[in-house]
Amino acid sequence: MSGRSRERQAKYQRIAAELRAGIETGEYEPGQRLPGENDLMAAHGVARMTARQALALLQAEGLVEARKGAGVFVRDFKPIRRLGVERLARAQWGSGRSIWAADIGGRDLVVDSVAVTEEEAPAAVAEILGLGEEDRACVRRRRFVLDGEPVLLSVSYLSAELVRGTPIAQPDTGPGGTYARLEELGRRPVRFREEVRSRMPNAEESAHLRMSSGMPVMLIGRTAFDDQGRAVEVNEMVLDASAYVLEYNFEA
Amino acid sequence: MSGRSRERQAKYQRIAAELRAGIETGEYEPGQRLPGENDLMAAHGVARMTARQALALLQAEGLVEARKGAGVFVRDFKPIRRLGVERLARAQWGSGRSIWAADIGGRDLVVDSVAVTEEEAPAAVAEILGLGEEDRACVRRRRFVLDGEPVLLSVSYLSAELVRGTPIAQPDTGPGGTYARLEELGRRPVRFREEVRSRMPNAEESAHLRMSSGMPVMLIGRTAFDDQGRAVEVNEMVLDASAYVLEYNFEA
Repeated sequence: MSGRSRERQAKYQRIAAELRAGIETGEYEPGQRLPGENDLMAAHGVARMTARQALALLQAEGLVEARKGAGVFVRDFKPIRRLGVERLARAQWGSGRSIWAADIGGRDLVVDSVAVTEEEAPAAVAEILGLGEEDRACVRRRRFVLDGEPVLLSVSYLSAELVRGTPIAQPDTGPGGTYARLEELGRRPVRFREEVRSRMPNAEESAHLRMSSGMPVMLIGRTAFDDQGRAVEVNEMVLDASAYVLEYNFEA
Repeated sequence: MSGRSRERQAKYQRIAAELRAGIETGEYEPGQRLPGENDLMAAHGVARMTARQALALLQAEGLVEARKGAGVFVRDFKPIRRLGVERLARAQWGSGRSIWAADIGGRDLVVDSVAVTEEEAPAAVAEILGLGEEDRACVRRRRFVLDGEPVLLSVSYLSAELVRGTPIAQPDTGPGGTYARLEELGRRPVRFREEVRSRMPNAEESAHLRMSSGMPVMLIGRTAFDDQGRAVEVNEMVLDASAYVLEYNFEA
């Protein structure tokens, strides 16, 4: 930071910067308690509100979390590394492995709820899937939980006509999941598009992911295409941003 | 949303959900004014605070924005579509085009500040670049502005020993940019890794990107590798999440 922008900083920002530096250098380790409001008031000669603002800023950045009555602690950010490209490589789902297994380095990412319905797709999804006005979508809604914490909501849309009566319309799609079943239907996905955004969660997302207040979600919209370039699946995902790093590897 | 979760919703959430549905169906179009606090109080028989909370929720989600004295308006989300894979394809920078040109569909994404320095790299970056304790990094700090609004902060690290005395150490790197110059140095990037996260901005990021309060940033960490698998550049980017969609296309 330049000297000029340092001067512009309010006191609470300077205190936050000092604490942030302490977290980054490891002076305060993950899980460790930060100095409290009283400590900061004494150390910096500031009012309680200033100390509180400094801690609130670090909370808003996701670096620390308040635990009721116990103080403010350095967050232990051990994100799920979601590999966009290798994760969907056919070698994985082709041999019956879950597309999720590569993500979590031994930790336990599990589906804790799944609901499969037939309904009208949202207009944007219907257009991508080429569904007409009379056509219905098979909709698979799942929530994924890691170490007991909900981290991902996933809603997958496929042509109901295509998948009706197959395991894709069942909660358990069998080994290799939806993509292995699509291959059996002659609609093997060969190309993927992922679109990534971030925003604050709405109330429903916040409740279902048990989000800390003030923390954003990432959205991934994934479209799977067959070898004719036809979209066979649209999957809308909402991820707790504090739980994920998305990784994409590709060649020039 | 299930009936049960609808019952759990507070009044302000129900009002927000109704307005949100109106935005999604196009009843309220981008740039259009939403009903104000007084309108919502009359229509729903609620207190001013409830109406205010409903509008605040939509603001936090980034769907609407308040304009002082004028009311709350549907945001016009025309994001920059940043193509991760094609964007970095050699066909583009190899022929002297900027790697950014593909992103914006004719709109004008320009660098409004660039500073090039030689300094010590952060430990994590030094490790990726294979810099020893004595080695310095060439650091290129840029800010990108779209339609007059700052949308992206970019800090690029390269080995100072490698690029010293070349246009990479100058503000203007010439046609094709850094990657074309690296090719001339025999260190052509052939493989890229991008890591994507999201969190709330810190105070400095917030100031430099002129962020609306309560809106998140996306972080992209990009590493460029040469044909020996050596990292030649690490680029840390901070993006205004409300301005960007990241797109990745790849094959199974």
